[in-house]
Amino acid sequence: MQLNDIYRLIGEDLARVESQIKSVTEVDSPALAELLEHSLREGGKRLRPVLTLLSAKFHHYDLDLLLPMATSVELMHTSTLVHDDAIDDSAVRRGRPTVNSLWGEDRAVLLGDYLFAKAGEFAALTGNLRVIRLFAQTLQIISSGELGQTFDAFELEQSRDRYFKRIASKTASLFSLATESGAVLSQAPEELVKVLREYGYNLGIAFQIVDDTLDFVGTEKEMGKPVGSDLAQGTLTLPAMLSLERYPDDNPVIELFRNRDMAEGDKKKKIKEAIEMVAEPSIIKQCYEVASDYCAKACRHLGRLPDNPSRQVLKDIAALVLSRKS
Amino acid sequence: MQLNDIYRLIGEDLARVESQIKSVTEVDSPALAELLEHSLREGGKRLRPVLTLLSAKFHHYDLDLLLPMATSVELMHTSTLVHDDAIDDSAVRRGRPTVNSLWGEDRAVLLGDYLFAKAGEFAALTGNLRVIRLFAQTLQIISSGELGQTFDAFELEQSRDRYFKRIASKTASLFSLATESGAVLSQAPEELVKVLREYGYNLGIAFQIVDDTLDFVGTEKEMGKPVGSDLAQGTLTLPAMLSLERYPDDNPVIELFRNRDMAEGDKKKKIKEAIEMVAEPSIIKQCYEVASDYCAKACRHLGRLPDNPSRQVLKDIAALVLSRKS
Repeated sequence: MQLNDIYRLIGEDLARVESQIKSVTEVDSPALAELLEHSLREGGKRLRPVLTLLSAKFHHYDLDLLLPMATSVELMHTSTLVHDDAIDDSAVRRGRPTVNSLWGEDRAVLLGDYLFAKAGEFAALTGNLRVIRLFAQTLQIISSGELGQTFDAFELEQSRDRYFKRIASKTASLFSLATESGAVLSQAPEELVKVLREYGYNLGIAFQIVDDTLDFVGTEKEMGKPVGSDLAQGTLTLPAMLSLERYPDDNPVIELFRNRDMAEGDKKKKIKEAIEMVAEPSIIKQCYEVASDYCAKACRHLGRLPDNPSRQVLKDIAALVLSRKS
Repeated sequence: MQLNDIYRLIGEDLARVESQIKSVTEVDSPALAELLEHSLREGGKRLRPVLTLLSAKFHHYDLDLLLPMATSVELMHTSTLVHDDAIDDSAVRRGRPTVNSLWGEDRAVLLGDYLFAKAGEFAALTGNLRVIRLFAQTLQIISSGELGQTFDAFELEQSRDRYFKRIASKTASLFSLATESGAVLSQAPEELVKVLREYGYNLGIAFQIVDDTLDFVGTEKEMGKPVGSDLAQGTLTLPAMLSLERYPDDNPVIELFRNRDMAEGDKKKKIKEAIEMVAEPSIIKQCYEVASDYCAKACRHLGRLPDNPSRQVLKDIAALVLSRKS
């Protein structure tokens, strides 16, 4: 099963989400339109709206109210990426220059604000107050998590617990918004809303662990962004934590975090060394094991959902999260 | 009539808004709490929530649903200030150092996001979908307006129409959200919702014109921020536009906008010259006349509202907007 097969299953719905996303770019101001087109162009995986659409398939939903929510989660995702890239001064995302690199950080901040607002408007179109409240709370969790990350930056002494809290805020929260909102909008019974929320949450944790691992073993071409970017930002992720546990004394990660004012050339060299050190097969294997545990946890209670093709697809997505290369 | 008198009239409601705002600062993370306390500290005029509370006083409202909206407009206002200051690299606001100057631009961006989200959550507490949608649309108008401002920056050839569009987006939109939401939540008939929306809108335009004028004639102590800051940012406002119309050739504003890379000392000197040039009494008088026209426009249809003390207070606020010094 490939992501494309999944997309075939819900292709028609997803095409409508895509056209709602496209409608966002149709604004009077040519300057704003250009920024919106750049940031919303197809090419992302659209994984979050897929999760919203699939999560609704177990009960009764009104497609006209479900679609705006699927659009909303993708817009919220995009807005957080635009702000993240601005904050991290990232130059490349999905193989293309970032908004901040093309139009400056200030415009990236304002574009992100606009996208948040647009996401909120789509969430409001569901007419469902519970979902709207979830939307607003998720954005709080994400932004406070990212804020926490800025305080944790370049900190070598971090518990694993802090890492998991951080990725829960910045990634799992949006995944669980995606699945929970689909469930709520399909009038699923509370018990099954919980099953789908937890599926999304644990899948999100697994997704982020894989992301953090690919930052050490992926290629720039596959990832669409430079490898080692977490280390460069001073963000300590699971692979680097495991490496520090094994080699607490002579580890290039330590030098990298302690000497933040290193010359650019030295820094690049040190990041390369650190990547080599961290990316040893047994550490990478361990990271994938942790991610795999979260995928298993995600799927544990899916059996309680009505048996239909979407249920199998949710399991397939969990497997895909582990095997993805980008 | 002073602002304090108005506050006495709705003092109890406003105290409850204040305590809702305070509740926002009560979060688990001490770092986030510190940033929130700094940005939400009392001392602002709380004019927008005052407008929401007053606008509901003509019909029947449920205070428990109205208060969250009053809180929401103040939080949205604060979040836009936090982002604006980050974008403009402003060091001082309301006489205190800005979030970006104390904790850096990145954290200011994330704090602003958090405040947006919190504002959205309070808007959702109204349980009123129309108001929630208005909230999201207003944030779009504000952010796209600010984005437009970045494209207009340092442009000498701007029509007055462009200026009015800009201040409508960045200021009047939030004022009209404040009044319209109060009216909607009080189940006012559509015709009177319109009266209150237009009151807010025109009052907002007047408020911003006065703000832009005080940037030339106020004192740093009164304003709580340096004078001439619009010119320093390359933002052309009504007083400077009028000055350029009168003295299109030999005007320090032109040099200031054309030579953006001026040394800091020269720039300061040039700004001082420009302030002296722009702040001639007849130009300032003309600006106040335009603002006064908008205040009159704001109040024009207030007579259609039921006659009660709040109606008089709305008129008094329009007068106060013209006489304010900060």
